[in-house]
Amino acid sequence: MTSLAPEFAFIARHFRDLAGPAGLGLSDDAAVFLPPPGRELVIAADAMVAGVHFLEDDPPRTIGSKLLRVNLSDLAAMGAVPLGYLTTLSIPPGLPPDWFAAFADGLRDDQARYGLSLLGGDTTSTTGPLVLSLTILGHVAAGAALRRNGARGGDGVWVTGTIGDGTLGLAALREGLADPDGSLADRYRLPRPRLGLALAGVAHAAIDVSDGLLQDLGHLCRESDTGAWIETALVPASAAAAAAGPHWLERRLTGGDDYELLLAVPPDSEQALLRTAAEAGIAVTRIGAFDDRTQGVRAMTPGGMELVVARPGWSHL
Amino acid sequence: MTSLAPEFAFIARHFRDLAGPAGLGLSDDAAVFLPPPGRELVIAADAMVAGVHFLEDDPPRTIGSKLLRVNLSDLAAMGAVPLGYLTTLSIPPGLPPDWFAAFADGLRDDQARYGLSLLGGDTTSTTGPLVLSLTILGHVAAGAALRRNGARGGDGVWVTGTIGDGTLGLAALREGLADPDGSLADRYRLPRPRLGLALAGVAHAAIDVSDGLLQDLGHLCRESDTGAWIETALVPASAAAAAAGPHWLERRLTGGDDYELLLAVPPDSEQALLRTAAEAGIAVTRIGAFDDRTQGVRAMTPGGMELVVARPGWSHL
Repeated sequence: MTSLAPEFAFIARHFRDLAGPAGLGLSDDAAVFLPPPGRELVIAADAMVAGVHFLEDDPPRTIGSKLLRVNLSDLAAMGAVPLGYLTTLSIPPGLPPDWFAAFADGLRDDQARYGLSLLGGDTTSTTGPLVLSLTILGHVAAGAALRRNGARGGDGVWVTGTIGDGTLGLAALREGLADPDGSLADRYRLPRPRLGLALAGVAHAAIDVSDGLLQDLGHLCRESDTGAWIETALVPASAAAAAAGPHWLERRLTGGDDYELLLAVPPDSEQALLRTAAEAGIAVTRIGAFDDRTQGVRAMTPGGMELVVARPGWSHL
Repeated sequence: MTSLAPEFAFIARHFRDLAGPAGLGLSDDAAVFLPPPGRELVIAADAMVAGVHFLEDDPPRTIGSKLLRVNLSDLAAMGAVPLGYLTTLSIPPGLPPDWFAAFADGLRDDQARYGLSLLGGDTTSTTGPLVLSLTILGHVAAGAALRRNGARGGDGVWVTGTIGDGTLGLAALREGLADPDGSLADRYRLPRPRLGLALAGVAHAAIDVSDGLLQDLGHLCRESDTGAWIETALVPASAAAAAAGPHWLERRLTGGDDYELLLAVPPDSEQALLRTAAEAGIAVTRIGAFDDRTQGVRAMTPGGMELVVARPGWSHL
């Protein structure tokens, strides 16, 4: 009775080498770790379902990376440093071992890139689509975690990177949008979590743009009890997104999968933001401002008209 | 654009009041908390899939409780005190709002019972069966976490409570096993995580029995590089399990869903174990011993024969 049941052999084969010292070789009931002294812990969990958050035929290596990166993006939005993660995998019949080897490779690459390790988790079978859940842990100086509720009237609305590439990548993969160099599909499959910015004392509030720029800006506004406006012409587009043309604008502002940061930055902190962004090699762009005399989000077009959208973003239910 | 998308309205309606202060009202990207000073953190994650870990027609209130309790059992096995949890729910179409209200009631009851609160999570849709994943956080005195790898030859093999009720409960619900007072079904639906025992310095090793007594004892043996024997006649049975009769013995020793603790306790700590068990109101029974001259697990019957089982426990793959 010393042979391993299939579940445990599976874990040993694909995942044991991903575990750091706290993970106890994935051989115990739980991981044990001493939190960094004086730091607050930040913890978040996001799940991905095949056919909803990734395509069944996406490369398993990028699925592993995406699972980790969407959660790293939540840490970035809080201004936190990655520490470790746990994952639960609910696996349908028929996925070959190669699939999991490549999936684990994606996790392994990004563990090294972002400086964290596997703490534990669970694998189970399901008759339905593959469901991947990940819980991420990070840490932050006490009191320095960025929140959604700190935006004030007069703060600028800033975004990192470019907006809309993820959803246009999905359009390229599913709807035939031209994507000659594959950069849009790449952005859909491989988010770039915007870790490494020194935002404490610089941004009043932050959120990661995962469910559509307008919707996520709406969350910042609601939690901060303020309104905001943006100029659609200021929303940064990648070369590939610009090439797609202006009729993709609404989709870019309401589609999901950006994983850029949306920040509320007061005017006297703009220089500090530009400095930390330059040091981190991350582009930042001012696209509007918060206005506490209003509620909700207004998106203004170059003609001075307000863009009215049917749905500001993505709901997972 | 200030109305809530369905996902966020759903979270607000059913889960916001479960969040403690660290959960930030479930309105941020992540939860933030300061770990108890000088304590190590313990973290684990377990998922449950409809039709695999619970029955589709189980009461949703007990499904919520079971999800929390199977994870609390992992904390119990490490000797940890509960702190908080995150949950990701992957939801198929058609589950009515009442279902989630009752599910959240199960979580709410047990938050109060076991002293922890919701830190965050995620909800998403799936076309497949309901998948519930939970990550649990606890804390323990530095260096005091129980491990699986500390059992030594001569330690007694001890179990809490009674063994086999969970799997017999499944047999009652699915295979028509008699269960006149419903106690077996109740044990299947509502594990009793064995928190509250002072096991530091008492037990050399611990595991929770979730996948079958023989298999989980095999894990303790493998991690501790020792063997063990048990006497099947010593394995404690509830009145309902005893009434089922001796031909259910193998099933009781190899079925899952016990969520009792299996402990390695040296002879000179037996009195301390009995004392803390009496204080906690938890029965403990010595069923065998570890023997480091052997490998693996031997289950001896009253006739002096070894019980040979086809499969020592449950694999989720």
